Amino acid sequence: MKSKLRTYDIIKKKRDGYPLSREEIRYFISGVVSGDIADYQTSAFLMAVYLRGMNYEETTELTLAIRDSGEKADFSGVKGVRADKHSTGGVGDKTSLVVVPAVASLGLKCAKVSGRGLGHTGGTVDKLESVRGFDTGLGKKEFVDAVNDVGCAIIGQTAKIAPADKILYALRDVTATIDSLPLIASSIMGKKLAVGDDVIVLDVKTGSGAFMKTEEESVRLAEIMVEVGKRAGKKTSALVTDMDMPLGRAIGNAVEVKEAIETMKGKGDGRFLSLCAALSAEMLYSAGYGELKDCEKAFYKSINEGKALETFRKMIERQGGDGGVIDDYGKFPAAKFVREVKAQKTGYIYRIDAEKYGTAACVAGAGRTRAEDAIDFAAGIEIVKTVGEKVGMGETVAKIFSNDANALFEAERIVSSAIEYSESAPDEKPVVIKRIV
Amino acid sequence: MKSKLRTYDIIKKKRDGYPLSREEIRYFISGVVSGDIADYQTSAFLMAVYLRGMNYEETTELTLAIRDSGEKADFSGVKGVRADKHSTGGVGDKTSLVVVPAVASLGLKCAKVSGRGLGHTGGTVDKLESVRGFDTGLGKKEFVDAVNDVGCAIIGQTAKIAPADKILYALRDVTATIDSLPLIASSIMGKKLAVGDDVIVLDVKTGSGAFMKTEEESVRLAEIMVEVGKRAGKKTSALVTDMDMPLGRAIGNAVEVKEAIETMKGKGDGRFLSLCAALSAEMLYSAGYGELKDCEKAFYKSINEGKALETFRKMIERQGGDGGVIDDYGKFPAAKFVREVKAQKTGYIYRIDAEKYGTAACVAGAGRTRAEDAIDFAAGIEIVKTVGEKVGMGETVAKIFSNDANALFEAERIVSSAIEYSESAPDEKPVVIKRIV
Repeated sequence: MKSKLRTYDIIKKKRDGYPLSREEIRYFISGVVSGDIADYQTSAFLMAVYLRGMNYEETTELTLAIRDSGEKADFSGVKGVRADKHSTGGVGDKTSLVVVPAVASLGLKCAKVSGRGLGHTGGTVDKLESVRGFDTGLGKKEFVDAVNDVGCAIIGQTAKIAPADKILYALRDVTATIDSLPLIASSIMGKKLAVGDDVIVLDVKTGSGAFMKTEEESVRLAEIMVEVGKRAGKKTSALVTDMDMPLGRAIGNAVEVKEAIETMKGKGDGRFLSLCAALSAEMLYSAGYGELKDCEKAFYKSINEGKALETFRKMIERQGGDGGVIDDYGKFPAAKFVREVKAQKTGYIYRIDAEKYGTAACVAGAGRTRAEDAIDFAAGIEIVKTVGEKVGMGETVAKIFSNDANALFEAERIVSSAIEYSESAPDEKPVVIKRIV
Repeated sequence: MKSKLRTYDIIKKKRDGYPLSREEIRYFISGVVSGDIADYQTSAFLMAVYLRGMNYEETTELTLAIRDSGEKADFSGVKGVRADKHSTGGVGDKTSLVVVPAVASLGLKCAKVSGRGLGHTGGTVDKLESVRGFDTGLGKKEFVDAVNDVGCAIIGQTAKIAPADKILYALRDVTATIDSLPLIASSIMGKKLAVGDDVIVLDVKTGSGAFMKTEEESVRLAEIMVEVGKRAGKKTSALVTDMDMPLGRAIGNAVEVKEAIETMKGKGDGRFLSLCAALSAEMLYSAGYGELKDCEKAFYKSINEGKALETFRKMIERQGGDGGVIDDYGKFPAAKFVREVKAQKTGYIYRIDAEKYGTAACVAGAGRTRAEDAIDFAAGIEIVKTVGEKVGMGETVAKIFSNDANALFEAERIVSSAIEYSESAPDEKPVVIKRIV
């Protein structure tokens, strides 16, 4: 009875727009995890937060309560400065596959705990699992040892980390309370902080293929997360980056790993490479490596000298994967069917709707609509012509890979509908829109 | 899946402040009753309604959806104009016990379905059950026949009427979404409309002992309910009436029935009688009895000629009760203990906090804090001195009746703390504050 009253009072206080205290937020989150607070109370609370908002203090306390709601990953055995980047999720976003080995090759330690894809956005863990044998479930000691030896390792999230987030997210998903800035910020940062890195660089995507569709919202989210990270005592910064068009030339799993390898071989898409450079430089700078400009130079040097790729190979092999994929793409799973999508007009590609390309890749089998769905590692999209490029009618603009012949047609329809043409070349859009420190 | 999406979209629409359509509201309420919509979605929806509000159209549609969520009481066998009054709940509010027989004695038909008390406010059904043998559970035919023969009958609510309200109320109670005007209005009016009266007069209480503490809120609630009633095709009007001080001289069950009888004998509290007159006149006027002034005169005539009391006696006897209580108050259950509360000062009683008196009566045993609690019919408070009256220090201001000797002390403490004294007589406050038609 007392407990019910307290919960009630906290909901009421937020309902009326008053800031909650550290103690109230802790009480609520611990009740959510223990089950003492019923789902229907939590969802009323979430709607009140959605509509009334939370200030920096509250968002930080909510983040810390989520961080502390389960086990903290104790990776203290890792020697050196631990840095991580986190993307809010995009289409064709394989930056981690380049950035992590690149900064590791320059002396940072990346003990990366990563997620799986859902809906139109992919996940790093899925992508890596398209490399035969790659184990994303290393035990703690193996993981720490791998990071110390190689400089980096990437594993999947466990349910033990920040369990409050899982419960809150599941409720938000069915109660229209997903896109609330304090709830998003605390969800992302709660999980990140539970992993215990020293340096956190956030890649906050904005545009059609992103979670946040407008620049204003994305900047706001980035500001909140940077502030929360700092208040939690971590070096935190963010880049707000464009996700209105897909990133790079591939969307899927094996196809994205291939693109990452090509990029580290110096043969990748320039726009994608420049984003990897900006994120890597940000991580190096925060870790005290030097001036931002020098950090960026160091990144390009690592790419050009093949050091990033060498580190990537070591990481794959250390985690049980077949490093031979780097030299022979034939070792990746291949799709039974390929369908070429043709340009419907002659002219410039003016726009590609990133969300639609992401959805098409998902339809082809590269993603999942429910957490329990299986993934087709070979499925995906190769973007032959991207925004700003000239095409003639009937020329191939994209290739869709799938093991499901029927899905190809639906995927092709979506891809075709995602492209807008223009007579003259569109203005080039920068990939990094804003830096927030 | 489809159903989940639809529910989600409705929550989202209200979250964003858009008005919901009739179809959306019907869909939601039918999902709530069938169980297809989960509690956590309903509570998020309720919080969104709380914070975003609803316009008249939405409130009306919500009311009608609640009305139609279960069985409608088919009392069509009642001949004549069916009128009812409904109070939003107060302390010492025994108006129904006078108004119902009075208007019935003047030709209206009152087929009243009434509630039980909760917290500091009492319920008509509880009060009537303090009359030995009184049956508040008549079957439909018995009830209709009684109304046709006597002019009035009063029974308790069944779970079959407006079940959506029960579910919504239970969730609102634990998620801080009780005091939302559209939710209150639709809850009250949904149940009222399910009973199918032709004339509805609302007694919207305002002040300390009421649900709505401010006049502004009470007027707003009254306006909404009147508008909803009209839109549902019923003659509806409301009086906003004072509940800052307790109504009349008794709070409890048997003690309130006794006071109602005294009032019908022409020996009651003047302020209470004037409220009964105003409500009765409103009902008669809406039913086409005549001008408001004439209706009020008719009420007083019914009281003065003993017709209201005679109808009350017939109603009690028709419902199996002992009509002898009217002539011999000794037939009411008597409390083992009586405690006199003494004035702590000499002067005028400036204010009596109605909510506190209600709570004290509840502590003495007259009410329940949970729906399943039992009631002590003999328990309650007699208000010996009320607001505006002069007292000498040590004089008796109230008597507390209880069968629980321990409870008396706590009740006395609360009663004492509820009284404010002044040196000069306070201004008299009218009982009827505003009429809304």
